[in-house]
Amino acid sequence: RKAHSIAVIPGDGIGTEVTPEGVRALKAAAERFNIDLTFEDFDFASCDYYLEHGQMLPDDWKAKLSRFDAIFFGAVGMPEKVPDHVSLWGSLLQFRREFDQYINLRPCKLMPGIKSPLADRQPGEIDFYVVRENTEGEYSSIGGKIFEGTPRETVMQETVMTRTGVDRVLKYAFELARKRPRRKLTSATKSNGISITMPYWDERVKAMHGAYPEVAVDQFHIDILAANFVLHPDWFDVVVASNLFGDILSDLGPACTGTIGVAPSANINPEGDFPSLFEPVHGSAPDIAGQGVANPIGQIWCGAMMLDHLGHEDAGKAILDAIESVLAKADPGVLTPDLKGQGTTRDLAQAIIEAI
Amino acid sequence: RKAHSIAVIPGDGIGTEVTPEGVRALKAAAERFNIDLTFEDFDFASCDYYLEHGQMLPDDWKAKLSRFDAIFFGAVGMPEKVPDHVSLWGSLLQFRREFDQYINLRPCKLMPGIKSPLADRQPGEIDFYVVRENTEGEYSSIGGKIFEGTPRETVMQETVMTRTGVDRVLKYAFELARKRPRRKLTSATKSNGISITMPYWDERVKAMHGAYPEVAVDQFHIDILAANFVLHPDWFDVVVASNLFGDILSDLGPACTGTIGVAPSANINPEGDFPSLFEPVHGSAPDIAGQGVANPIGQIWCGAMMLDHLGHEDAGKAILDAIESVLAKADPGVLTPDLKGQGTTRDLAQAIIEAI
Ligand SMILES: CC(C)[C@H](C(=O)O)[C@@H](O)C(=O)O
Ligand SMILES: CC(C)[C@H](C(=O)O)[C@@H](O)C(=O)O
Repeated sequence: RKAHSIAVIPGDGIGTEVTPEGVRALKAAAERFNIDLTFEDFDFASCDYYLEHGQMLPDDWKAKLSRFDAIFFGAVGMPEKVPDHVSLWGSLLQFRREFDQYINLRPCKLMPGIKSPLADRQPGEIDFYVVRENTEGEYSSIGGKIFEGTPRETVMQETVMTRTGVDRVLKYAFELARKRPRRKLTSATKSNGISITMPYWDERVKAMHGAYPEVAVDQFHIDILAANFVLHPDWFDVVVASNLFGDILSDLGPACTGTIGVAPSANINPEGDFPSLFEPVHGSAPDIAGQGVANPIGQIWCGAMMLDHLGHEDAGKAILDAIESVLAKADPGVLTPDLKGQGTTRDLAQAIIEAI
Repeated sequence: RKAHSIAVIPGDGIGTEVTPEGVRALKAAAERFNIDLTFEDFDFASCDYYLEHGQMLPDDWKAKLSRFDAIFFGAVGMPEKVPDHVSLWGSLLQFRREFDQYINLRPCKLMPGIKSPLADRQPGEIDFYVVRENTEGEYSSIGGKIFEGTPRETVMQETVMTRTGVDRVLKYAFELARKRPRRKLTSATKSNGISITMPYWDERVKAMHGAYPEVAVDQFHIDILAANFVLHPDWFDVVVASNLFGDILSDLGPACTGTIGVAPSANINPEGDFPSLFEPVHGSAPDIAGQGVANPIGQIWCGAMMLDHLGHEDAGKAILDAIESVLAKADPGVLTPDLKGQGTTRDLAQAIIEAI
């Protein structure tokens, strides 16, 4: 019986409403599959914490969180109270960097009962992963301003790619692709326009492909790739991308499947030197916070990804199956308003938990 | 009677098939509206020219083209023969830079008779412009590699934004927005992640807004903006973006309206110090080149944008109306195969020319 300790960080807004339901779903799965999960709650990495303490995190946050096996994260951000660049660079983006969570993994999956904005697409037709580099690339903080306040004002910012950084995300993506039935990897590039860093990215893809001849590789420039997410989402199996391109594609993908409100994401340190972090894509949604109607599926799906990551793939699958079965039933008394139902966060979570 | 001289550059692939039809359509509109247009053809900026001369352009290209009022461009690129970065940086991207075509303008419009990949969208519902910065930003060629060939290999590339460069594209976008009925401008940013250049972009948007209080401004981070192109394309009126973000959005927008095969784009030097360049979005399409079945609408629509630019908005509108009326008729004998018809390039162009 394996034991795992989980740090729970609800964060802001609907994060505080959906994390408890996610924890309940995890407990149900843990019981059924005989997994030993313990949870501990933290109030930092929230804007309320910032308003009280003048910083998003306590000084010893790294020591506090390092001893956990994973972080189960809600959402951060209350732009009315704290500017996003303060709350995000002070929490989520720090975790990614300091815990070397160099993989951001997001499934793009057409789910039963969820209306896709795309015409004529059936569940099963769209089912791929975006693997995003999560620590370097376009998200460097290197750069600055010259001739400030004058007409000659000029601002520069570096994109930084290291061989280590690029190769490790490519390796992860190739490993993921080779385990999937279609064994297909698509690389997002823009080497026809971004003429220094992106050709390097392409070069490393080619080099890494040598070690995975069984994986079929193609590449698209990011402009036409974004277009193809809309036109041919069935083409994709695993898509690997730089930090910025991955950011864009991993919002666009869930948008195309109609799942932006329910999709999960994983910030992974594959070696396990540091805890990985699991957070829903939807964010803190200040507009509906406090009403008890937030959709808990993203958070619960995060629980499934976390169990996968901790080596309990059967339990992860049971959660995902439960989500799909409840969605397929399409009971308006259970579904939350974003899914055109009248259910509460609790109602929908309860239905999933019973299905687990 | 105004006279305008037009340089025609067919380029590669289907560019050589659609430009003659575009010129015929322009001649028809010129006759009807009593405009004096003269055309001159050039064979450079094509991969065949490159294979013969070892460069994409003759040494005196700038002198040759400067005396024209506009450039009517087909498409460039034959990756089987010449790498894209050679053919594109050697032609199109040089024109943009050297002719200071700092605006890239692309309409995103749901057209009658064209199937949108989005469900339940009607013509009239989606009708906006992407205004893309076309000379600086992420497309700098500044940067390089260190520790080459070793595990410490590191590659960097600068994004460069100047006040002049940012302000002039914003000004153009505000001017365009204020002339449209909805008077709405959306700015594409990523200031929560790209923490130096993008906050500067936001700052300049705010400053420029001061001069255009009648325009309503909102902003989205590029990830959620891309998602909203799919989820809420009806929200947008004029979208302004940096070089890279504009590149992505101006492929994604036409993809959402199903018009990626027929959309035009304009590379504009608003001051008229240099000729502006009009090219369809579709590119050279080597796979269907030589068969006479390429869709000529993108090229003809480019003609409409060119006439607008030259001050003949009535003539431009007549071309666009003709395109829409032919599309609305949906005659399979006239439409090209990409629109599920059996017509040739010539057939479809002829129908539009008759409607003009
Ligand atoms: C071909 C490429 C360099 C170009 C660009 O990125 O600008 C193209 O995508 C475009 O949008 O005109
Ligand atoms: C909030 C923002 C900084 C973040 C990112 O760009 O990485 C978010 O969009 C994400 O995808 O997790």
